Amino acid sequence: MSAPSRRQLLIGGALAGSAGLLLGAGKHSEASASPHAGGHGSGAGAHGTAATATGHGGGENGATFRLGQQVDHEANGFHPTALLRDFDYGTTSVLPDGRTLREWEIFASDEDIEIAPGVYFPAWTFNSRVPGPALRCREGERLRVRFTNGSEHPHTMHFHGIHPAEMDGIPGVGRGIIEPGASFTYEFDATPFGVHLYHCHVSPLAEHIARGMYGTFIVDPAHGRPPADEMVMVMHGYNTTFDGEGNQLYAVNGIPFHYMHEPVQVKRGELVRIYLVNILEYDPINSFHVHGNFFDYFPTGTRLEPAEFTDTIVQAQGQRGICEMRFPYPGKYMFHAHKTEFADLGWMGFFEVTE
Amino acid sequence: MSAPSRRQLLIGGALAGSAGLLLGAGKHSEASASPHAGGHGSGAGAHGTAATATGHGGGENGATFRLGQQVDHEANGFHPTALLRDFDYGTTSVLPDGRTLREWEIFASDEDIEIAPGVYFPAWTFNSRVPGPALRCREGERLRVRFTNGSEHPHTMHFHGIHPAEMDGIPGVGRGIIEPGASFTYEFDATPFGVHLYHCHVSPLAEHIARGMYGTFIVDPAHGRPPADEMVMVMHGYNTTFDGEGNQLYAVNGIPFHYMHEPVQVKRGELVRIYLVNILEYDPINSFHVHGNFFDYFPTGTRLEPAEFTDTIVQAQGQRGICEMRFPYPGKYMFHAHKTEFADLGWMGFFEVTE
Amino acid sequence: MSAPSRRQLLIGGALAGSAGLLLGAGKHSEASASPHAGGHGSGAGAHGTAATATGHGGGENGATFRLGQQVDHEANGFHPTALLRDFDYGTTSVLPDGRTLREWEIFASDEDIEIAPGVYFPAWTFNSRVPGPALRCREGERLRVRFTNGSEHPHTMHFHGIHPAEMDGIPGVGRGIIEPGASFTYEFDATPFGVHLYHCHVSPLAEHIARGMYGTFIVDPAHGRPPADEMVMVMHGYNTTFDGEGNQLYAVNGIPFHYMHEPVQVKRGELVRIYLVNILEYDPINSFHVHGNFFDYFPTGTRLEPAEFTDTIVQAQGQRGICEMRFPYPGKYMFHAHKTEFADLGWMGFFEVTE
Repeated sequence: MSAPSRRQLLIGGALAGSAGLLLGAGKHSEASASPHAGGHGSGAGAHGTAATATGHGGGENGATFRLGQQVDHEANGFHPTALLRDFDYGTTSVLPDGRTLREWEIFASDEDIEIAPGVYFPAWTFNSRVPGPALRCREGERLRVRFTNGSEHPHTMHFHGIHPAEMDGIPGVGRGIIEPGASFTYEFDATPFGVHLYHCHVSPLAEHIARGMYGTFIVDPAHGRPPADEMVMVMHGYNTTFDGEGNQLYAVNGIPFHYMHEPVQVKRGELVRIYLVNILEYDPINSFHVHGNFFDYFPTGTRLEPAEFTDTIVQAQGQRGICEMRFPYPGKYMFHAHKTEFADLGWMGFFEVTE
Repeated sequence: MSAPSRRQLLIGGALAGSAGLLLGAGKHSEASASPHAGGHGSGAGAHGTAATATGHGGGENGATFRLGQQVDHEANGFHPTALLRDFDYGTTSVLPDGRTLREWEIFASDEDIEIAPGVYFPAWTFNSRVPGPALRCREGERLRVRFTNGSEHPHTMHFHGIHPAEMDGIPGVGRGIIEPGASFTYEFDATPFGVHLYHCHVSPLAEHIARGMYGTFIVDPAHGRPPADEMVMVMHGYNTTFDGEGNQLYAVNGIPFHYMHEPVQVKRGELVRIYLVNILEYDPINSFHVHGNFFDYFPTGTRLEPAEFTDTIVQAQGQRGICEMRFPYPGKYMFHAHKTEFADLGWMGFFEVTE
Repeated sequence: MSAPSRRQLLIGGALAGSAGLLLGAGKHSEASASPHAGGHGSGAGAHGTAATATGHGGGENGATFRLGQQVDHEANGFHPTALLRDFDYGTTSVLPDGRTLREWEIFASDEDIEIAPGVYFPAWTFNSRVPGPALRCREGERLRVRFTNGSEHPHTMHFHGIHPAEMDGIPGVGRGIIEPGASFTYEFDATPFGVHLYHCHVSPLAEHIARGMYGTFIVDPAHGRPPADEMVMVMHGYNTTFDGEGNQLYAVNGIPFHYMHEPVQVKRGELVRIYLVNILEYDPINSFHVHGNFFDYFPTGTRLEPAEFTDTIVQAQGQRGICEMRFPYPGKYMFHAHKTEFADLGWMGFFEVTE
């Protein structure tokens, strides 16, 4: 009522982003929070007169869609629709003992990403994308991840999984911090099976995560899982003001609202398997809700039997799991955080089910 | 110490509510936040001299109880004690194919509700109550929900459950928004069994939820559950300042602190089954804790075997589950959010166990 | 950018703490928040120039470690390393009916605790320590807890567990509040088996918890659990500004960052069992993450089969569980909240695995 509150600033920031487009703000512009952006105010207090406007960030008529604009995926160098089913299996060879050796090359770099039309974010990335590649292997393999730091900042790769301390990718243990220009090869066994993640673990940690340094790490069970239309969804956010206070935009797989523009295409009746990871910084939890359907949920993916059958699950940062579902009817079904603020600021999309 | 903080404003708001009663504030008064209301300050910093007063909102000696006052349930048109065990089975008939058709009439309207003595909230309601009716059916039935929007605002009914896209009750899909004066009939099969919910899904979504547009949706398993003393508890809040920043009051079943006044009556040794739903807007999580007892917890109610035996569970918005317990001893047992702020601001009550 | 934000104040508070040491601030000094402490600012907005400094609270090079200083454990009267494996079994005798009677003496007192070098916190304690003693018994025993209030404030002991209302330790039921100088004996049966907790339940509740009045309550199954290296970890925080807004420091077992100084010593391959309790006030959730390893998780410890196999779990206030793991490799492995802010402000430590 008096000074703009934190959340109003957040939402103002999102609007300022799309306003930036109207103003022709070019590359490198900041998504600065504007207390005048308004738009979300809903007739505070005046009962019976609350606003019914929908122009408060996203959705089919929302801010980033208003002009039919999308971000320039080609300039970004990655496309969330492609990224959805993009599993990086690396290259394999056979070790003298007969085991499979699987190898990846990972390169850290600083990249400006257009995260909403006209809004550029100076990201720190693995392989020039946010999120980083979904590294995928099979339980029991030997893994070798050659990491080269091409960023101007020191970084590491810290994997969630079982491995020796010297392969943990944290400062002060083993090789520790990988300075700009340096390289290090992380090597360990693929265990346990499940859906995991990796992220940079350099201080200030919140920023090294929030800038975009995270990705999915999937270890398939030795005998695999049943055939399915598989996809990966990484839930994250963007602190476009860099104040370390919270996120101004939320997303799955890099671009807020992307799957509103380009719904995830699935087939009626087919098993859909989502590897879902939450790496959202600053907020205490994130959530995933699907409309008109239910899913089996496998927390951390470490068991072959589901723990729950529901339509809404919660993940704190670092938690992840597998959602398996079949859509019984054709049509468009939303999926989004059942945290309204996150959904309004970008964490929403559609499944489009066809025969 | 300097300016009042957000939380102090919140608690000030709650106190201002009851203060409003002292001042004879009538209907339509606003529960405006008063930084002078104080009362919660606990000797900040002066170690050894922290206040021991209990006059900070609720409990048996707290703000809304101080004068032995309660809200006018008759004027409100609903009573949380009655609502606790009020399951709306609608009306049934038999379809040509032998299946049961179950039908409800749901009416949206704008209602002023006295949510604390002297504090009126301009709610948007389903069937003139907050929460809306607990719609209850059996797995496999055909459901028909005729929704008429008598509110001045556009609304929908979005059900959690499995149904075709055109019955999903969101803007832009199927019939989409139901404008004031319009009607629409949602029709789908009752599946899967469990405890679910429905809520309005019109933008701005946070406000359409926070104003009171939600209710429980129970699908009984085909063969039912064991006999029990069944009740429904919907956890929610009131953003009485309409700033979209958070809640000034918290409740189960409409009226903060109600079950402190009128404890939930249960019999010693009898199976108690609570259909528990969290629709709290703005806050990341809610929780349910019972004193002196433990319960079996069935997340989403979609399985007949419990997942956990505990006394404290967490639900994010849209999550829900079933709590089953027996009280081995007579007496009064609190239940409340194990989030102190929520409990202090209304989300607390008693079970009273008798022979 | 303009006024310091809440979180900047928090982090400023932590830094002010260690700054206090430099200034020779003696006992009874306040950990007042200093907006000038800075240090966490990470080049807000200036893309490509974000700070890489690590001087923002904790870690091996962080604020409280900078000078190699530690708190004075002897003056505090308790030591987190000892406390880790300190289970209080009380004294036992045999009742006429052959059952075991287990008895404890618990004494509440006000204690100044040095929670970070130079930072003193005026705690309210059970048995002069934070957290209070880990009371441990066996299912089916008769328990007798003689509580004497030597604090200047009224208190109670509220146990999570199954017991009669008059033993619940809340105001207005049974004996209710135990005034300064008064005593009361809580007596009830040990049930159900699991890991539980106790805490004061006097208003203002948030402060009575946040000041340090909590501890672990373990009920062993009748036939015990498999042999293991057992330890207890209580996750909590310190609101050093006493504003009731949040925590400036976070910890397990009393002293922020302690297990960074003195890693938890464990043996390679040995079963490690952690009784993990979250009593953190003000924040909605807490979490526990271990590096380079996974654990079986038993929510509330009420079943003998684990519910999940993971490396990251979440607990809201009042939740607790058992983590069981074996470290396959030697070396140092971090454990911390996967909520970066909590980790940065003290909730981090190391396991050190040796042959």
